[in-house]
Amino acid sequence: MNRRDILKAGAIGAGVYALASAGARAAGKAKPAFVLVHGSWHGAWTWNEMTIRLAKAGHAAFAVDLPGAGSRTRFPASFLKRPLDKKAFATEVSPVAGITQAQRTAHVVDVVKSAAGLGDGKVVLVGHSWGGNTISAVAEAVPDLIHSVVYLTAFMLRGGISPGEMLGDPSFKAGKVLPLVMGDPEKIGALRIDPRSTDPAYVAAAKEAFYADVTDGHFAAIANLLHCDEVAQTVGVKSPVTPANFGKVARHYVHLAEDRAIPAAAQDRMVELVDGSGIGGKTVVHRMGGSHSPFYAQPDALLEVFRKTAA
Amino acid sequence: MNRRDILKAGAIGAGVYALASAGARAAGKAKPAFVLVHGSWHGAWTWNEMTIRLAKAGHAAFAVDLPGAGSRTRFPASFLKRPLDKKAFATEVSPVAGITQAQRTAHVVDVVKSAAGLGDGKVVLVGHSWGGNTISAVAEAVPDLIHSVVYLTAFMLRGGISPGEMLGDPSFKAGKVLPLVMGDPEKIGALRIDPRSTDPAYVAAAKEAFYADVTDGHFAAIANLLHCDEVAQTVGVKSPVTPANFGKVARHYVHLAEDRAIPAAAQDRMVELVDGSGIGGKTVVHRMGGSHSPFYAQPDALLEVFRKTAA
Repeated sequence: MNRRDILKAGAIGAGVYALASAGARAAGKAKPAFVLVHGSWHGAWTWNEMTIRLAKAGHAAFAVDLPGAGSRTRFPASFLKRPLDKKAFATEVSPVAGITQAQRTAHVVDVVKSAAGLGDGKVVLVGHSWGGNTISAVAEAVPDLIHSVVYLTAFMLRGGISPGEMLGDPSFKAGKVLPLVMGDPEKIGALRIDPRSTDPAYVAAAKEAFYADVTDGHFAAIANLLHCDEVAQTVGVKSPVTPANFGKVARHYVHLAEDRAIPAAAQDRMVELVDGSGIGGKTVVHRMGGSHSPFYAQPDALLEVFRKTAA
Repeated sequence: MNRRDILKAGAIGAGVYALASAGARAAGKAKPAFVLVHGSWHGAWTWNEMTIRLAKAGHAAFAVDLPGAGSRTRFPASFLKRPLDKKAFATEVSPVAGITQAQRTAHVVDVVKSAAGLGDGKVVLVGHSWGGNTISAVAEAVPDLIHSVVYLTAFMLRGGISPGEMLGDPSFKAGKVLPLVMGDPEKIGALRIDPRSTDPAYVAAAKEAFYADVTDGHFAAIANLLHCDEVAQTVGVKSPVTPANFGKVARHYVHLAEDRAIPAAAQDRMVELVDGSGIGGKTVVHRMGGSHSPFYAQPDALLEVFRKTAA
């Protein structure tokens, strides 16, 4: 009777469960660990519903706060004063303006090295949205530690182009994120939004862009965790992927049909550009319905996709 | 050459590292996984600096959002309107008023069952502050899955008394949390604070109570993640611990000398009451300097203590 049978039987005492798991591991059946990288204005909290589900599915799972994000962000003084002085908020230089893509990549490489040994020696590396830029660079740096890279409606770029260039592609025209941005990113060093806005129109637009398919109450709980400044330096950094490294790693794209942050057409376009670039291999595309953030809107369905990327 | 020697040598390629870890696991040297439970007004994000350090130390680690907390909170409408209507905020019934300690306990039991198999079959169960109430109930429910319980300046209660009763003990008199609470918990169903306050005196008092030893900028990043309503139902729930279950589990108390949320005297008093209650065993006390939240103020020092609780 293997572990799955025991789970199916649905009649497991806690002790039996632990024993079965330990047995599976001793027999060399450990599964890859997951390392999970959030998108813009988000933090490690993005994955709170996924890590506990991955545990149940037999995977160790680690979520990171990227440098400048989550508990590692720092706020402009104007953000903390209410009512908001919009002019001050649009012009104050960001405390995270000095953070770089290289720092973010190095941090995640470090976590991947630690996490690999807590599974079968390799990691499933997931990036959401803007987090795709980081996982590409990490997979290029340590391909031998990566079981697969998983772009969850994320930036997956062919070598030599930057996220900023990709944003200029016609496939991004329907995107609803840029209208939320306040101030000039080049001058303030950040893509700045106001997650504490009390303007109903702004709140509704943010919900539509990122979380169209959760309740208003759930969105308020999630939006409370957002921060205002996404590091702008990353916009211009060209994708470093090469056939010799990144090209060797199995890659998956999780496509969200009703996404208004990264439109469906842009998701398809990025897959097309990478697969046609001579990088090697072919992206496995998993199609889901729904908005930009399935980790909260439909975590059980997303888990099923994650399991496929770990097979 | 075992894994520790390789790490000491400091000359490890990523591939070698993963191989060494996989080897250690195959040889049955897996270490216990950690399950980490946050305190009042906090969420799984409490542990963002600790989970990645635990990975480096060879431990799988899972942080939970308790029901009603973190991404699982729900806000009273008055919290989302600014400037704050203090009267409305002090009287609006909490959307999380119906959440119970039993729901929180059941959720963490579920995570412990999953996490146990991702280490050596048992879990180091850590609770911070009010999270101590949950880990006591979990250890009582599934003692055979617990390697040790770790109270990080947390509520550790002898059987039969409630957190509310403990708060009435003279040792809690110097505590600086209750003055932050707005409204009548019995009427609104929550212990309510305002993490988005723009009143400098209130912000300073909150920082002194919880995060006296981080910078103002770091505190602002952390305070952004707090929510306003801590479930009040938990206040009156008596500790269910018994010698036959909880009493069998190794227990640790991490004592923070300069804590102003749970004063040093109250931490000592809870250890004294439990150890003198006939529950069995003796609490191992680890003494640190510093304020209520070492997971952000001094994560490396806290990791060293965590490692001792996993030995």
